[in-house]
Amino acid sequence: MLLYDSAVSGNCYKVRLLLAHLGLPYERREVSVVDRSGRLELLGGLNPGLRVPTLVLDDGRSLGESNAILWHLAQGTGYVPDDEFERAQVLQWMFFEQYSHEPYIAVVRFLVAVSPSTADEREIGPRMRAGYKALDAMERHLAARAFLVGDGYSIADIALYAYTHVAPEGGFELDRYPAINTWLARVAGQEGHVAIAA
Amino acid sequence: MLLYDSAVSGNCYKVRLLLAHLGLPYERREVSVVDRSGRLELLGGLNPGLRVPTLVLDDGRSLGESNAILWHLAQGTGYVPDDEFERAQVLQWMFFEQYSHEPYIAVVRFLVAVSPSTADEREIGPRMRAGYKALDAMERHLAARAFLVGDGYSIADIALYAYTHVAPEGGFELDRYPAINTWLARVAGQEGHVAIAA
Repeated sequence: MLLYDSAVSGNCYKVRLLLAHLGLPYERREVSVVDRSGRLELLGGLNPGLRVPTLVLDDGRSLGESNAILWHLAQGTGYVPDDEFERAQVLQWMFFEQYSHEPYIAVVRFLVAVSPSTADEREIGPRMRAGYKALDAMERHLAARAFLVGDGYSIADIALYAYTHVAPEGGFELDRYPAINTWLARVAGQEGHVAIAA
Repeated sequence: MLLYDSAVSGNCYKVRLLLAHLGLPYERREVSVVDRSGRLELLGGLNPGLRVPTLVLDDGRSLGESNAILWHLAQGTGYVPDDEFERAQVLQWMFFEQYSHEPYIAVVRFLVAVSPSTADEREIGPRMRAGYKALDAMERHLAARAFLVGDGYSIADIALYAYTHVAPEGGFELDRYPAINTWLARVAGQEGHVAIAA
Protein backbone atom coordinates (compact mmCIF):
# COMPACT_ATOMS: atom_id res chain seq x y z
CA MET A 1 0.00 0.00 0.00
CA LEU A 2 1.06 3.57 -0.62
CA LEU A 3 0.12 6.31 1.83
CA TYR A 4 0.18 9.92 0.68
CA ASP A 5 1.23 11.23 4.03
CA SER A 6 2.32 14.24 6.06
CA ALA A 7 4.56 13.76 9.08
CA VAL A 8 2.93 16.60 11.04
CA SER A 9 -0.69 15.83 10.15
CA GLY A 10 -2.76 14.19 12.86
CA ASN A 11 -5.15 12.95 10.18
CA CYS A 12 -2.26 11.07 8.55
CA TYR A 13 -1.01 9.89 11.94
CA LYS A 14 -4.36 8.16 12.56
CA VAL A 15 -3.70 5.92 9.56
CA ARG A 16 -0.05 5.30 10.50
CA LEU A 17 -1.13 4.38 14.03
CA LEU A 18 -3.71 1.84 12.89
CA LEU A 19 -1.30 0.37 10.32
CA ALA A 20 1.26 -0.02 13.13
CA HIS A 21 -1.30 -1.80 15.32
CA LEU A 22 -2.17 -4.09 12.43
CA GLY A 23 1.47 -4.70 11.51
CA LEU A 24 0.80 -3.89 7.87
CA PRO A 25 3.69 -2.75 5.66
CA TYR A 26 3.27 0.34 3.47
CA GLU A 27 5.18 3.04 1.67
CA ARG A 28 4.95 6.69 2.62
CA ARG A 29 5.03 9.61 0.22
CA GLU A 30 5.39 12.95 2.01
CA VAL A 31 3.03 15.72 0.82
CA SER A 32 3.27 19.30 2.10
CA VAL A 33 0.30 20.55 4.08
CA VAL A 34 1.57 24.14 3.83
CA ASP A 35 2.26 24.42 0.08
CA ARG A 36 -0.88 22.98 -1.48
CA SER A 37 0.01 23.68 -5.11
CA GLY A 38 -0.11 20.72 -7.46
CA ARG A 39 -2.67 18.85 -5.38
CA LEU A 40 -5.05 18.30 -8.32
CA GLU A 41 -2.26 16.80 -10.42
CA LEU A 42 -0.99 14.66 -7.54
CA LEU A 43 -4.24 13.48 -5.95
CA GLY A 44 -7.01 14.34 -8.45
CA GLY A 45 -7.52 10.78 -9.64
CA LEU A 46 -7.19 9.32 -6.15
CA ASN A 47 -9.18 11.45 -3.71
CA PRO A 48 -11.89 13.99 -4.58
CA GLY A 49 -11.00 16.03 -1.51
CA LEU A 50 -7.37 16.41 -2.71
CA ARG A 51 -6.18 15.90 0.86
CA VAL A 52 -3.79 13.72 2.78
CA PRO A 53 -4.04 11.05 3.94
CA THR A 54 -4.87 9.26 0.71
CA LEU A 55 -4.31 5.52 0.68
CA VAL A 56 -3.67 3.54 -2.50
CA LEU A 57 -4.34 -0.16 -2.02
CA ASP A 58 -2.20 -2.84 -3.64
CA ASP A 59 -4.87 -3.38 -6.32
CA GLY A 60 -4.71 0.31 -7.28
CA ARG A 61 -8.00 1.41 -5.70
CA SER A 62 -7.66 4.50 -3.56
CA LEU A 63 -9.45 6.04 -0.62
CA GLY A 64 -9.44 9.48 0.98
CA GLU A 65 -10.63 10.89 4.32
CA SER A 66 -8.70 9.67 7.33
CA ASN A 67 -11.68 8.22 9.14
CA ALA A 68 -12.99 6.37 6.07
CA ILE A 69 -9.51 4.87 5.67
CA LEU A 70 -9.51 3.82 9.34
CA TRP A 71 -12.93 2.23 8.86
CA HIS A 72 -11.83 0.27 5.82
CA LEU A 73 -8.58 -0.99 7.33
CA ALA A 74 -10.26 -1.94 10.61
CA GLN A 75 -12.97 -4.17 9.14
CA GLY A 76 -12.57 -7.72 10.40
CA THR A 77 -10.12 -6.68 13.10
CA GLY A 78 -10.57 -5.98 16.80
CA TYR A 79 -10.27 -2.23 16.20
CA VAL A 80 -13.91 -1.86 15.28
CA PRO A 81 -16.78 -3.41 17.29
CA ASP A 82 -18.98 -6.18 15.88
CA ASP A 83 -22.19 -4.81 17.34
CA GLU A 84 -24.10 -2.74 14.78
CA PHE A 85 -25.10 0.01 17.20
CA GLU A 86 -21.57 0.32 18.59
CA ARG A 87 -20.31 0.58 15.01
CA ALA A 88 -22.65 3.52 14.52
CA GLN A 89 -21.36 5.05 17.76
CA VAL A 90 -17.80 4.72 16.43
CA LEU A 91 -18.92 6.67 13.36
CA GLN A 92 -20.72 9.22 15.56
CA TRP A 93 -17.43 9.98 17.33
CA MET A 94 -15.48 10.07 14.07
CA PHE A 95 -17.95 12.56 12.56
CA PHE A 96 -17.79 14.56 15.80
CA GLU A 97 -14.02 14.58 15.39
CA GLN A 98 -14.09 15.92 11.85
CA TYR A 99 -16.85 18.49 12.44
CA SER A 100 -16.51 19.69 16.04
CA HIS A 101 -12.92 18.89 17.03
CA GLU A 102 -10.46 18.89 14.12
CA PRO A 103 -11.46 22.29 12.61
CA TYR A 104 -10.65 23.90 15.95
CA ILE A 105 -8.03 21.86 17.81
CA ALA A 106 -6.07 20.77 14.72
CA VAL A 107 -6.39 24.08 12.92
CA VAL A 108 -5.22 26.11 15.95
CA ARG A 109 -2.20 23.79 16.24
CA PHE A 110 -1.54 24.28 12.52
CA LEU A 111 -1.80 28.06 12.77
CA VAL A 112 0.31 28.29 15.93
CA ALA A 113 2.89 25.53 15.55
CA VAL A 114 3.04 24.28 11.94
CA SER A 115 2.49 27.31 9.72
CA PRO A 116 2.53 30.48 11.87
CA SER A 117 3.23 32.67 8.84
CA THR A 118 -0.26 31.91 7.49
CA ALA A 119 -2.00 32.60 10.81
CA ASP A 120 -4.66 35.27 11.13
CA GLU A 121 -4.71 36.15 14.83
CA ARG A 122 -8.43 36.90 14.71
CA GLU A 123 -9.09 33.28 13.78
CA ILE A 124 -7.42 31.80 16.81
CA GLY A 125 -9.65 33.00 19.68
CA PRO A 126 -12.99 31.71 18.32
CA ARG A 127 -11.37 28.44 17.26
CA MET A 128 -9.85 27.93 20.72
CA ARG A 129 -13.24 28.46 22.35
CA ALA A 130 -14.83 25.90 20.02
CA GLY A 131 -11.93 23.52 20.64
CA TYR A 132 -12.49 23.70 24.39
CA LYS A 133 -16.17 22.86 23.80
CA ALA A 134 -15.07 19.68 22.00
CA LEU A 135 -12.74 18.81 24.88
CA ASP A 136 -15.56 19.48 27.36
CA ALA A 137 -17.75 16.99 25.45
CA MET A 138 -14.99 14.36 25.52
CA GLU A 139 -14.37 14.93 29.24
CA ARG A 140 -18.06 14.50 30.10
CA HIS A 141 -18.19 11.26 28.12
CA LEU A 142 -14.88 9.79 29.32
CA ALA A 143 -15.52 10.61 33.00
CA ALA A 144 -17.34 7.29 33.37
CA ARG A 145 -15.68 5.28 30.60
CA ALA A 146 -12.33 3.74 29.67
CA PHE A 147 -12.79 4.17 25.91
CA LEU A 148 -15.11 6.20 23.70
CA VAL A 149 -17.29 3.29 22.54
CA GLY A 150 -18.14 0.09 24.38
CA ASP A 151 -15.51 -1.62 26.50
CA GLY A 152 -12.57 -1.60 24.12
CA TYR A 153 -10.07 0.47 22.23
CA SER A 154 -11.32 1.23 18.73
CA ILE A 155 -10.73 3.46 15.73
CA ALA A 156 -12.94 6.04 17.49
CA ASP A 157 -10.18 6.38 20.10
CA ILE A 158 -7.52 6.54 17.37
CA ALA A 159 -9.44 9.27 15.54
CA LEU A 160 -9.83 11.44 18.65
CA TYR A 161 -6.38 10.72 20.10
CA ALA A 162 -4.57 12.04 17.03
CA TYR A 163 -5.18 15.75 17.55
CA THR A 164 -6.13 15.68 21.25
CA HIS A 165 -2.70 14.52 22.40
CA VAL A 166 -0.96 17.32 20.49
CA ALA A 167 -3.54 20.01 21.43
CA PRO A 168 -1.02 21.64 23.82
CA GLU A 169 1.14 22.48 20.77
CA GLY A 170 -1.67 24.88 19.81
CA GLY A 171 -1.87 26.28 23.33
CA PHE A 172 -4.74 24.19 24.69
CA GLU A 173 -4.41 23.44 28.39
CA LEU A 174 -5.30 19.84 29.09
CA ASP A 175 -4.63 20.02 32.85
CA ARG A 176 -8.27 20.74 33.52
CA TYR A 177 -9.35 17.48 31.86
CA PRO A 178 -8.49 14.55 34.16
CA ALA A 179 -10.57 11.96 32.29
CA ILE A 180 -9.04 12.95 28.96
CA ASN A 181 -5.53 12.68 30.44
CA THR A 182 -6.22 9.20 31.84
CA TRP A 183 -7.64 8.16 28.46
CA LEU A 184 -4.66 9.61 26.54
CA ALA A 185 -2.32 7.50 28.69
CA ARG A 186 -4.52 4.44 28.17
CA VAL A 187 -4.42 4.90 24.38
CA ALA A 188 -0.65 5.44 24.40
CA GLY A 189 -0.30 2.18 26.34
CA GLN A 190 -2.00 0.04 23.70
CA GLU A 191 0.08 -2.70 22.12
CA GLY A 192 1.79 -1.55 18.95
CA HIS A 193 1.34 2.16 19.71
CA VAL A 194 3.64 4.49 17.80
CA ALA A 195 4.24 8.21 18.30
CA ILE A 196 3.17 10.83 15.78
CA ALA A 197 6.84 11.54 15.03
CA ALA A 198 7.72 7.86 14.57
CA MET B 1 -38.33 6.77 17.20
CA LEU B 2 -37.95 10.39 18.24
CA LEU B 3 -35.97 12.80 16.07
CA TYR B 4 -34.65 16.01 17.60
CA ASP B 5 -35.04 17.97 14.43
CA SER B 6 -34.84 21.36 12.76
CA ALA B 7 -37.01 22.11 9.75
CA VAL B 8 -34.38 24.31 8.07
CA SER B 9 -31.35 22.10 8.79
CA GLY B 10 -30.02 20.08 5.89
CA ASN B 11 -28.37 17.74 8.36
CA CYS B 12 -31.78 16.95 9.84
CA TYR B 13 -33.32 16.71 6.37
CA LYS B 14 -30.88 13.91 5.50
CA VAL B 15 -32.42 11.80 8.26
CA ARG B 16 -36.00 12.74 7.35
CA LEU B 17 -35.30 11.85 3.71
CA LEU B 18 -33.91 8.41 4.51
CA LEU B 19 -36.76 7.73 6.97
CA ALA B 20 -39.21 8.65 4.19
CA HIS B 21 -37.49 6.26 1.76
CA LEU B 22 -37.64 3.52 4.37
CA GLY B 23 -41.25 4.28 5.29
CA LEU B 24 -40.41 4.37 8.99
CA PRO B 25 -42.67 6.31 11.37
CA TYR B 26 -41.13 8.73 13.87
CA GLU B 27 -41.91 11.74 16.00
CA ARG B 28 -40.25 15.11 15.42
CA ARG B 29 -39.26 17.55 18.13
CA GLU B 30 -38.25 20.94 16.72
CA VAL B 31 -35.04 22.44 18.15
CA SER B 32 -33.85 25.94 17.28
CA VAL B 33 -30.57 26.15 15.37
CA VAL B 34 -30.37 29.91 16.04
CA ASP B 35 -30.97 30.04 19.80
CA ARG B 36 -28.67 27.34 21.13
CA SER B 37 -29.29 27.93 24.84
CA GLY B 38 -30.37 24.92 26.87
CA ARG B 39 -28.70 22.43 24.53
CA LEU B 40 -26.78 20.69 27.33
CA GLU B 41 -29.97 20.17 29.33
CA LEU B 42 -31.91 19.00 26.25
CA LEU B 43 -29.33 16.83 24.47
CA GLY B 44 -26.51 16.30 26.99
CA GLY B 45 -27.44 12.73 27.78
CA LEU B 46 -28.23 11.87 24.17
CA ASN B 47 -25.52 13.32 21.94
CA PRO B 48 -22.06 14.50 23.02
CA GLY B 49 -22.03 17.04 20.18
CA LEU B 50 -25.24 18.67 21.50
CA ARG B 51 -26.47 19.03 17.93
CA VAL B 52 -29.48 18.17 15.83
CA PRO B 53 -30.25 15.76 14.39
CA THR B 54 -30.23 13.45 17.38
CA LEU B 55 -32.21 10.24 17.02
CA VAL B 56 -33.64 8.34 20.00
CA LEU B 57 -34.45 4.75 19.10
CA ASP B 58 -37.47 2.95 20.47
CA ASP B 59 -35.29 1.12 23.02
CA GLY B 60 -34.03 4.47 24.39
CA ARG B 61 -30.55 4.36 22.86
CA SER B 62 -29.60 7.55 21.07
CA LEU B 63 -27.29 8.58 18.28
CA GLY B 64 -25.94 11.90 17.04
CA GLU B 65 -24.22 13.11 13.86
CA SER B 66 -26.42 13.06 10.77
CA ASN B 67 -24.18 10.77 8.75
CA ALA B 68 -23.75 8.24 11.58
CA ILE B 69 -27.55 8.17 11.89
CA LEU B 70 -27.88 7.59 8.12
CA TRP B 71 -25.35 4.78 8.36
CA HIS B 72 -27.19 3.08 11.21
CA LEU B 73 -30.64 3.34 9.63
CA ALA B 74 -29.37 2.17 6.23
CA GLN B 75 -27.78 -1.08 7.39
CA GLY B 76 -29.49 -4.04 5.79
CA THR B 77 -31.29 -1.87 3.26
CA GLY B 78 -30.53 -1.00 -0.36
CA TYR B 79 -29.39 2.49 0.64
CA VAL B 80 -25.88 1.33 1.52
CA PRO B 81 -23.79 -0.97 -0.70
CA ASP B 82 -22.88 -4.52 0.34
CA ASP B 83 -19.34 -4.35 -1.02
CA GLU B 84 -16.85 -3.47 1.71
CA PHE B 85 -14.81 -1.08 -0.43
CA GLU B 86 -17.92 0.72 -1.70
CA ARG B 87 -19.06 1.05 1.90
CA ALA B 88 -15.76 2.79 2.66
CA GLN B 89 -16.30 5.05 -0.37
CA VAL B 90 -19.73 5.98 1.00
CA LEU B 91 -18.02 7.00 4.23
CA GLN B 92 -15.33 8.88 2.28
CA TRP B 93 -18.03 11.04 0.68
CA MET B 94 -19.86 11.52 3.97
CA PHE B 95 -16.65 12.68 5.68
CA PHE B 96 -15.95 14.92 2.69
CA GLU B 97 -19.43 16.37 3.17
CA GLN B 98 -18.92 17.18 6.84
CA TYR B 99 -15.38 18.53 6.47
CA SER B 100 -15.15 20.15 3.01
CA HIS B 101 -18.76 20.90 2.03
CA GLU B 102 -21.08 21.54 4.98
CA PRO B 103 -18.88 24.11 6.81
CA TYR B 104 -18.95 26.25 3.67
CA ILE B 105 -22.11 25.60 1.68
CA ALA B 106 -24.39 25.02 4.67
CA VAL B 107 -22.85 27.75 6.80
CA VAL B 108 -23.08 30.39 4.04
CA ARG B 109 -26.76 29.47 3.57
CA PHE B 110 -27.26 29.76 7.32
CA LEU B 111 -25.56 33.17 7.47
CA VAL B 112 -27.35 34.52 4.39
CA ALA B 113 -30.80 32.92 4.54
CA VAL B 114 -31.49 31.48 7.99
CA SER B 115 -29.87 33.81 10.51
CA PRO B 116 -28.63 36.95 8.72
CA SER B 117 -28.49 38.91 11.97
CA THR B 118 -25.59 36.73 13.17
CA ALA B 119 -23.66 37.02 9.90
CA ASP B 120 -20.16 38.48 9.80
CA GLU B 121 -19.68 39.68 6.21
CA ARG B 122 -15.97 38.88 6.35
CA GLU B 123 -16.79 35.22 6.88
CA ILE B 124 -18.83 34.84 3.74
CA GLY B 125 -16.26 35.37 0.96
CA PRO B 126 -13.72 32.76 2.10
CA ARG B 127 -16.48 30.28 2.85
CA MET B 128 -18.00 30.77 -0.61
CA ARG B 129 -14.64 30.12 -2.26
CA ALA B 130 -14.21 26.91 -0.24
CA GLY B 131 -17.80 25.91 -1.05
CA TYR B 132 -17.14 26.26 -4.77
CA LYS B 133 -14.07 24.01 -4.34
CA ALA B 134 -16.35 21.33 -2.87
CA LEU B 135 -18.78 21.75 -5.77
CA ASP B 136 -15.86 21.52 -8.23
CA ALA B 137 -14.85 18.20 -6.65
CA MET B 138 -18.40 16.86 -6.95
CA GLU B 139 -18.68 18.03 -10.57
CA ARG B 140 -15.41 16.28 -11.54
CA HIS B 141 -16.60 13.07 -9.93
CA LEU B 142 -20.19 13.14 -11.20
CA ALA B 143 -19.21 14.02 -14.78
CA ALA B 144 -18.80 10.32 -15.53
CA ARG B 145 -21.17 8.82 -12.98
CA ALA B 146 -24.87 8.59 -12.16
CA PHE B 147 -24.35 8.43 -8.39
CA LEU B 148 -21.48 9.16 -6.01
CA VAL B 149 -20.64 5.53 -5.22
CA GLY B 150 -21.04 2.45 -7.41
CA ASP B 151 -24.07 2.13 -9.64
CA GLY B 152 -26.83 3.03 -7.21
CA TYR B 153 -28.38 5.69 -5.05
CA SER B 154 -27.01 5.52 -1.52
CA ILE B 155 -26.75 7.48 1.72
CA ALA B 156 -23.69 9.18 0.19
CA ASP B 157 -26.04 10.84 -2.30
CA ILE B 158 -28.49 11.71 0.47
CA ALA B 159 -25.71 13.28 2.54
CA LEU B 160 -24.44 15.46 -0.32
CA TYR B 161 -27.87 16.28 -1.75
CA ALA B 162 -29.10 17.86 1.47
CA TYR B 163 -27.09 21.07 1.33
CA THR B 164 -26.15 21.04 -2.37
CA HIS B 165 -29.75 21.42 -3.56
CA VAL B 166 -30.31 24.46 -1.33
CA ALA B 167 -26.88 26.02 -2.02
CA PRO B 168 -28.51 28.76 -4.18
CA GLU B 169 -30.25 30.02 -1.01
CA GLY B 170 -26.75 31.04 0.14
CA GLY B 171 -25.95 32.62 -3.21
CA PHE B 172 -24.07 29.75 -4.85
CA GLU B 173 -24.59 29.58 -8.61
CA LEU B 174 -25.15 26.01 -9.70
CA ASP B 175 -25.60 26.84 -13.41
CA ARG B 176 -21.95 26.16 -14.09
CA TYR B 177 -22.27 22.57 -12.79
CA PRO B 178 -24.15 20.46 -15.37
CA ALA B 179 -23.25 17.10 -13.83
CA ILE B 180 -24.36 18.24 -10.40
CA ASN B 181 -27.66 19.50 -11.82
CA THR B 182 -28.35 16.21 -13.57
CA TRP B 183 -27.50 14.35 -10.37
CA LEU B 184 -29.75 16.62 -8.26
CA ALA B 185 -32.68 15.82 -10.55
CA ARG B 186 -31.82 12.11 -10.41
CA VAL B 187 -31.83 12.16 -6.60
CA ALA B 188 -35.09 14.12 -6.47
CA GLY B 189 -36.64 11.47 -8.74
CA GLN B 190 -35.96 8.57 -6.40
CA GLU B 191 -38.97 6.71 -5.08
CA GLY B 192 -40.17 8.08 -1.76
CA HIS B 193 -38.31 11.37 -2.12
CA VAL B 194 -39.56 14.19 0.07
CA ALA B 195 -38.66 17.89 -0.02
CA ILE B 196 -36.73 19.61 2.75
CA ALA B 197 -39.86 21.59 3.64
CA ALA B 198 -42.12 18.52 3.73
